[in-house]
Amino acid sequence: MTKGAAYEGAGQLRTVSVQVEPPGPGELQIAVAYCGLCGTDLHIAHGNMDARVRTPLVFGHEASGTVAAVGPGVSDWEVGDPLTVMPLIWDGTCAACLAGHQHICQNLTFVGIDSPGALQQRWNVPASIAVRLPAELDLRTAALVEPVAVAVHDVRRSGLQVGDRAVVLGGGPIGVLIACVARQAGADVLIAEIDESRRDRIAGLGFTVSDPAGTDLGAEVERWTGGVGADVVFEVSGAAAAVRSATGLARVRGTIVIVAIHAAPREVDLQRLFWRELRVLGARVYQRSDFERAISLLSLGAIPVSELITDVVPLDRTGDAIADLSAGRAMKILVDVAGQDQA
Amino acid sequence: MTKGAAYEGAGQLRTVSVQVEPPGPGELQIAVAYCGLCGTDLHIAHGNMDARVRTPLVFGHEASGTVAAVGPGVSDWEVGDPLTVMPLIWDGTCAACLAGHQHICQNLTFVGIDSPGALQQRWNVPASIAVRLPAELDLRTAALVEPVAVAVHDVRRSGLQVGDRAVVLGGGPIGVLIACVARQAGADVLIAEIDESRRDRIAGLGFTVSDPAGTDLGAEVERWTGGVGADVVFEVSGAAAAVRSATGLARVRGTIVIVAIHAAPREVDLQRLFWRELRVLGARVYQRSDFERAISLLSLGAIPVSELITDVVPLDRTGDAIADLSAGRAMKILVDVAGQDQA
Repeated sequence: MTKGAAYEGAGQLRTVSVQVEPPGPGELQIAVAYCGLCGTDLHIAHGNMDARVRTPLVFGHEASGTVAAVGPGVSDWEVGDPLTVMPLIWDGTCAACLAGHQHICQNLTFVGIDSPGALQQRWNVPASIAVRLPAELDLRTAALVEPVAVAVHDVRRSGLQVGDRAVVLGGGPIGVLIACVARQAGADVLIAEIDESRRDRIAGLGFTVSDPAGTDLGAEVERWTGGVGADVVFEVSGAAAAVRSATGLARVRGTIVIVAIHAAPREVDLQRLFWRELRVLGARVYQRSDFERAISLLSLGAIPVSELITDVVPLDRTGDAIADLSAGRAMKILVDVAGQDQA
Repeated sequence: MTKGAAYEGAGQLRTVSVQVEPPGPGELQIAVAYCGLCGTDLHIAHGNMDARVRTPLVFGHEASGTVAAVGPGVSDWEVGDPLTVMPLIWDGTCAACLAGHQHICQNLTFVGIDSPGALQQRWNVPASIAVRLPAELDLRTAALVEPVAVAVHDVRRSGLQVGDRAVVLGGGPIGVLIACVARQAGADVLIAEIDESRRDRIAGLGFTVSDPAGTDLGAEVERWTGGVGADVVFEVSGAAAAVRSATGLARVRGTIVIVAIHAAPREVDLQRLFWRELRVLGARVYQRSDFERAISLLSLGAIPVSELITDVVPLDRTGDAIADLSAGRAMKILVDVAGQDQA
């Protein structure tokens, strides 16, 4: 038996004992080191995804670890190899898969939501979704590969180019990671964030920062871009007001990327979209190449890991971490699943 | 002196006498043959664009004709040459122009709205916006070049490819022209139109047609595409309900083109846009290559001109034509500006 963190119903998280099974054919057993918590995990914990998840659910999908055991039929992996997991399993047969968009398969299994996740000390996954880590990347940093891959995917999908000016609406972890990836790709970045402590943190990372509640963001972006407008706007806030403003910030033929989840339909200024021939793109999860690029960005030191990881907690404090994140008291919290930090 | 049709205030259209001036340097004087009326002309006539137009305004921008006189410094043109006009004058210096998007110049002059248009028997325009017509294209047909160019631009911007399935929301003149251009480009096309007489006309043109008020359009498109969804959806109706439905019709990574004018912000299902990684594009007016392609499509006989032009009226019946169009009693009406049909 080993330990895990399980969601058992709205607001109920518990440390549970998990039976360790040997990895099946084609599987790897992972000794999970760290697992980051994200917005989706908060949604699960608050019961917002009860229609989708089956309880009890060991959740978590931002993992790093090492191979603990290799299942039958798996080559190329050895015990001790460091790895992360791209938590997507597609059916390979739907229209999306057949068109090459496996990452948004119409019958996608998201590991950690639709099947058991990384908040357990031994985790069996198909070897096909394991992603090798370089030996020199420490496993704390590597727990950020998944969210960095989200940011890489969003920036790649935007078509952002060297010298572009990008506005990021919402300065939470994903917003800041998008800003980091966009900056690394050669863009100037302005982040709009309503929370003052987040703005301070963002300014400390060297980004231009704006308070959309306290200033006229449109006028500010107009000034910042010399009257042209932003090449790319990333909507990461999930707020209706941000969507309303986004079309006003983009240049002629500019791009708006919808990264956030908007549960309700949002009002969009289609007149502006038409007038400036704007482009609005949805961007979701990542592809394998985004994971590879995320690993290389983290290895290069292009992501301010120590500023982003505001806390590391033991497995049995997962519930407290969820509460801290929900209250906006943290950016990124990692769960020390192996317990090595406490050893 | 010659005759023209002028807008003089909401609901007031009058046949006026117009002083004929010789063409200035760089200009051509056009003997206008026909001028089509479009939705923008209705907006002008109803007073919806009073904040923009200066009265009295000789309007009209869907013209065909021949060169009546050649101004100083103009080469390549001779009296009698058949031509149409791409009614856009850009400043060449704004950010849109500098980025190569002159057609959506931030200080665009739209000829026939912001300056005198084609509903006059002699019309002076810069030679730079004249577009040569092939001798074999009759001038009635050529009056459709401008709206066909709109459709070519919309289809080109959509990225539609051979074998794609396209849904057109709204079966007015522009919707039908988009459908024709898309079909000519190798797509299967379904047109959704609420008006029964328009649906009959559309079915007569060989398109799949649907009544979005009387059927579940989403289910119909699902069936029609074998469960995949449409590659491209063109929103040409201007209706809030069409915008709400559009995201539900497109396949994974599909494209929605906003062609219609939406004066008020519209609710958009951004969750679906995100989930399927959709792309929403604004598309406005046309570029020179769209005009060239429109001329070649009309020359090829790829556009059902006789079914689209439901009436041709003399200049002094322009007001009646506007009333018929406003009441939905016609598809495309041409004004016989030269009066040759009545001769």
